[in-house]
Amino acid sequence: MTENMETKLNNLSIENPNDDEDIVDPWNVVSKSEKGIDYDKLIKKFGSSKIDSELLDRFEKVIKQKVHHFLRRGIVFSHRDLNSILNQYESGKPFYLYTGRGPSSSSMHLGHLVPFMFCKWLQDTFNVPLVIQLTDDEKCFWRNIQMEDAQQMAFENAKDIIAIGFDINKTFIFSDLNYMGQCPEFYQNVIRIQRCVTFNQVKGIFGFDDSTPIGKIAFPAIQATPALSTSFPHIFGKQKLPCLIPCAIDQDPYFRMTRDVTPRIGYQKPALLHSRFLPALQGAQTKMSSSDENSTIFLTDSAKKVKNKVNKHAFSGGQATVEEHREKGGNCDIDISFQYLSFFLEDDERLEQIKKDYSSGALLTGELKKILIDTITPIITRHQEARAKVTDELVRQFMTPRKLDL
Amino acid sequence: MTENMETKLNNLSIENPNDDEDIVDPWNVVSKSEKGIDYDKLIKKFGSSKIDSELLDRFEKVIKQKVHHFLRRGIVFSHRDLNSILNQYESGKPFYLYTGRGPSSSSMHLGHLVPFMFCKWLQDTFNVPLVIQLTDDEKCFWRNIQMEDAQQMAFENAKDIIAIGFDINKTFIFSDLNYMGQCPEFYQNVIRIQRCVTFNQVKGIFGFDDSTPIGKIAFPAIQATPALSTSFPHIFGKQKLPCLIPCAIDQDPYFRMTRDVTPRIGYQKPALLHSRFLPALQGAQTKMSSSDENSTIFLTDSAKKVKNKVNKHAFSGGQATVEEHREKGGNCDIDISFQYLSFFLEDDERLEQIKKDYSSGALLTGELKKILIDTITPIITRHQEARAKVTDELVRQFMTPRKLDL
Repeated sequence: MTENMETKLNNLSIENPNDDEDIVDPWNVVSKSEKGIDYDKLIKKFGSSKIDSELLDRFEKVIKQKVHHFLRRGIVFSHRDLNSILNQYESGKPFYLYTGRGPSSSSMHLGHLVPFMFCKWLQDTFNVPLVIQLTDDEKCFWRNIQMEDAQQMAFENAKDIIAIGFDINKTFIFSDLNYMGQCPEFYQNVIRIQRCVTFNQVKGIFGFDDSTPIGKIAFPAIQATPALSTSFPHIFGKQKLPCLIPCAIDQDPYFRMTRDVTPRIGYQKPALLHSRFLPALQGAQTKMSSSDENSTIFLTDSAKKVKNKVNKHAFSGGQATVEEHREKGGNCDIDISFQYLSFFLEDDERLEQIKKDYSSGALLTGELKKILIDTITPIITRHQEARAKVTDELVRQFMTPRKLDL
Repeated sequence: MTENMETKLNNLSIENPNDDEDIVDPWNVVSKSEKGIDYDKLIKKFGSSKIDSELLDRFEKVIKQKVHHFLRRGIVFSHRDLNSILNQYESGKPFYLYTGRGPSSSSMHLGHLVPFMFCKWLQDTFNVPLVIQLTDDEKCFWRNIQMEDAQQMAFENAKDIIAIGFDINKTFIFSDLNYMGQCPEFYQNVIRIQRCVTFNQVKGIFGFDDSTPIGKIAFPAIQATPALSTSFPHIFGKQKLPCLIPCAIDQDPYFRMTRDVTPRIGYQKPALLHSRFLPALQGAQTKMSSSDENSTIFLTDSAKKVKNKVNKHAFSGGQATVEEHREKGGNCDIDISFQYLSFFLEDDERLEQIKKDYSSGALLTGELKKILIDTITPIITRHQEARAKVTDELVRQFMTPRKLDL
């Protein structure tokens, strides 16, 4: 990485104040600061490692290309054991990717795209198999929904995931409620993990108590299981391969537990890459939520709706009047449109220019919002077109246990 | 049932003193009394119902034949909702049987035969399908054994079970570690149950605490699941059928929990029939245990070994000398040979005569032991011959999910 790029990175990364009150766990993401979650604090709290310029340099050297802009901009900001995966790749040895999604709604939003877009880049870059777990069983425990509805949501979500462009020859998507009943080896690995984790441990990690249903208590093992390659005998046979898990940072508690268990049952700890959240339109305090229509841009929203939502709801870091804005400039650290551009506008130089112009007051809030609309509308339109082409039959193919290209 | 038979029943049933110290749960069966477990107390403690002469009369009326001697002699002594199953049978409506075994050792002993012999009688009498769960996953949680060994034990135990004579067209035997991965509907029912049971509940029922592994905590749902007929779509389709579970009394905690859950998820409570334990050779304080070679007559023991074990270890209710025995007589309530005969000697009149003769002193301990040896040796020899004929292929057939005759 060039020095110039590093400077840019620092400029683009969203700085966070010290704030003791952030809550980040698999079910809650809330920040008290308008600048959003303090991700540096999270790194300390979770005990993961910051992705620094040295690691990015090495990453680019190993893959012989620029890293994804999520990495360049600190959107994928934290890791565990990434170097061991880079070593593996460098020496031509196999590994695989594992990510997942809890299918809580049948229509996904822009925030859900982030880890999957990154995951696709990793798959394309490393050319390795990817397994995607849809935790429809988890949803039955945490939400009061019918099992059939959870399964249907998983199926619909699989369509969105496939539309992102994953390679069918290298990608296996599975729903727990189905795959558990298709692969004895998967259940056997669940048992291996459930033997090693006590109630005390999950209590501490997930905040369970005595009134927690036993399904919730046992569930973390099910999310851990895909980190064991032998859970997919149709792909890996009996090989024990290293695993890299790209995920949003709120899922880290599951994988801290996983990393605690794997060495005790003869497996390497999975490596992790953590991404930030796409904040809600209303501001950086929370992540986008499917349950609040106006906090979110759904992947099913029309171009008109996208335009309206951005114009109406995207929290602005600009000043109250045009005159004041021209004079004092806007604050990119809290401006949601700018933050969204840092996720979805790939051109580093243009993004840097926008930051400069908005901060100086040369660029008005309305103009910034228009740039955002023009940036994300084609992404959403393209996604909708791609999703329309995903047939039920194609979903079934992706979700059929089978050999993949290794 | 005739009045005469009832009198006999009362005479033959093993009476128990009041004793506060009996421990009966799925992992421990210990009595402080030399007369063994106080089963009447257990009925009160567990809240089940005693099988009384009225119920037995009705049973015989419904099935138009004598009930099994285990029922006649109070060896199967307690029930829950048996009348609802008799109603079902009487009106020609379908139901099914479910029983199970935790495969803790590859060779089963005489005590293990008891629930299965009774189960076979139920299957023959009612002519209904039977599912047999081998909880090899449970054994991985409770004993420090390899998963492969648990599976191997399940396979070997299946041979013993098949040798008892179950009808292949009406019997499905399954191992959790395999079947969970063969039938999504089974796992889905596990989830339905795990949603409804809290840690507080299993803590109370099974004595779990904070240091219990999460696999143990969640396991009771897996033992509950076969009580939902939809866990076997290849047999019952989507039909919700009533279920009758014959089991040893120590398994009741699992099914108390099951009966608590089933109405909340749209299923009838399973009915239960509870059997006593075959006591250890050394006396009625404990049940037979595979881990103590001399407490147990294994189904693999040679005729010579059976003879030696009975002669050497079977606790005697007789007197110290022949003279004293002739004078005072023996005590059938604590004599293990007599108790074993009450399990395995079908002829009521002969058993009654033996009781009379041993109690009066006319029958000596050595003579009583010889009767026991002559009674159980052919049972064991027959079992060994039948088991030798059970091929691996036949086991696989029994363990293949398939249609059964309904």
